[in-house]
Amino acid sequence: MNNLSQLGLRLPAAPRPAGRYQPWVLANGLLFISGQIPLVDGALAYKGRVGAELTEDQGREATRIATLNVLAQIDAALGGFDRLITLTRVEGTVSSAPGWYQQPRVLDAASELFYEVLGHRGDHARAAFGAASLPLDAPVELVVTAAVRP
Amino acid sequence: MNNLSQLGLRLPAAPRPAGRYQPWVLANGLLFISGQIPLVDGALAYKGRVGAELTEDQGREATRIATLNVLAQIDAALGGFDRLITLTRVEGTVSSAPGWYQQPRVLDAASELFYEVLGHRGDHARAAFGAASLPLDAPVELVVTAAVRP
Amino acid sequence: MNNLSQLGLRLPAAPRPAGRYQPWVLANGLLFISGQIPLVDGALAYKGRVGAELTEDQGREATRIATLNVLAQIDAALGGFDRLITLTRVEGTVSSAPGWYQQPRVLDAASELFYEVLGHRGDHARAAFGAASLPLDAPVELVVTAAVRP
Repeated sequence: MNNLSQLGLRLPAAPRPAGRYQPWVLANGLLFISGQIPLVDGALAYKGRVGAELTEDQGREATRIATLNVLAQIDAALGGFDRLITLTRVEGTVSSAPGWYQQPRVLDAASELFYEVLGHRGDHARAAFGAASLPLDAPVELVVTAAVRP
Repeated sequence: MNNLSQLGLRLPAAPRPAGRYQPWVLANGLLFISGQIPLVDGALAYKGRVGAELTEDQGREATRIATLNVLAQIDAALGGFDRLITLTRVEGTVSSAPGWYQQPRVLDAASELFYEVLGHRGDHARAAFGAASLPLDAPVELVVTAAVRP
Repeated sequence: MNNLSQLGLRLPAAPRPAGRYQPWVLANGLLFISGQIPLVDGALAYKGRVGAELTEDQGREATRIATLNVLAQIDAALGGFDRLITLTRVEGTVSSAPGWYQQPRVLDAASELFYEVLGHRGDHARAAFGAASLPLDAPVELVVTAAVRP
């Protein structure tokens, strides 16, 4: 039902929350996933602002890691992707140097990977934001909502 | 069912996404619209931060343009406004000069236009944010969710 | 059905909107609450950025006040907490000094109070953001969505 293995990808373990909350909540046909950052084995793979400490390519790679963490949360919440109807919205915030405005280019790394893994069920509305800072100095954070079959 | 023409308004064509995502996703009775900025014919009508490069009045005018784009997306998604039950939440982010805190005054331009066009179905919860930067140097971005009849 | 009084807490009156919108909208089994800031009797109890004008402890206290305002809105919307199925997502934005990245520690004050008051129905996904500024110079803003019985 998904082509992770065809893509040569393996889902990481779903990251644990950074505080006293749940990694996801499923209610009334919607899956609300906590904000995901580029954690690998509990540590940030990248830190800093795109356009300053990080290049756009590094921002894209960080976004790809955060996207795998989103997919891992969906997999953990639903026991696979069979019950997923569609992603609904992806909100992406990029820690940004002053004067750098290419957040959509960085977030396309998330959109592309969602489509590769989920096919048409990877459809999503999107919103992109710049931020002066993100928790733990993360370069990107993804907040994803999905529609789910009962 | 709407009073756009009575208001002397005409909806623009719904803007195309700025990346590899959908302009909106409709699932489980909710319409999730991608973040809308003050694009006119594919180009930003205003750029910069309110309180610095732009005045509050310019911020309000930019917000009004972004609001028309939201309405155009709803119209495109639903084939008009008949199926709209109500807006649910409007999240507005205003690119803001340091020390300028009047984001709600700027976002009222969105709220007012939603009510003018949609009447009581323009009801919405709202959240206002300041940002150091937005994609493409947009001064304002609106993220809107709505409830829809099957 | 709740233990506010056991906790020695009393809900404030639900704050009025800061503009032309609704404090909450209930549709299709979801309660969308407007962004809540640390207002007490219509005035901000704290102003400024955590890590600069405010300490982390002050940020946590401000967050606690905003959380009580969220609970007051839920109570006003539903006439108590009986119809609440669960919180779904809490998005918390903290006005942050440059180089300060401990937004999750501040937002834990919200998560902890939701659990104290609502028990397991306080479950929520969470997303934390830093911002250069928030409306009215508020130090923290909480945007909460909840699932509700018909």
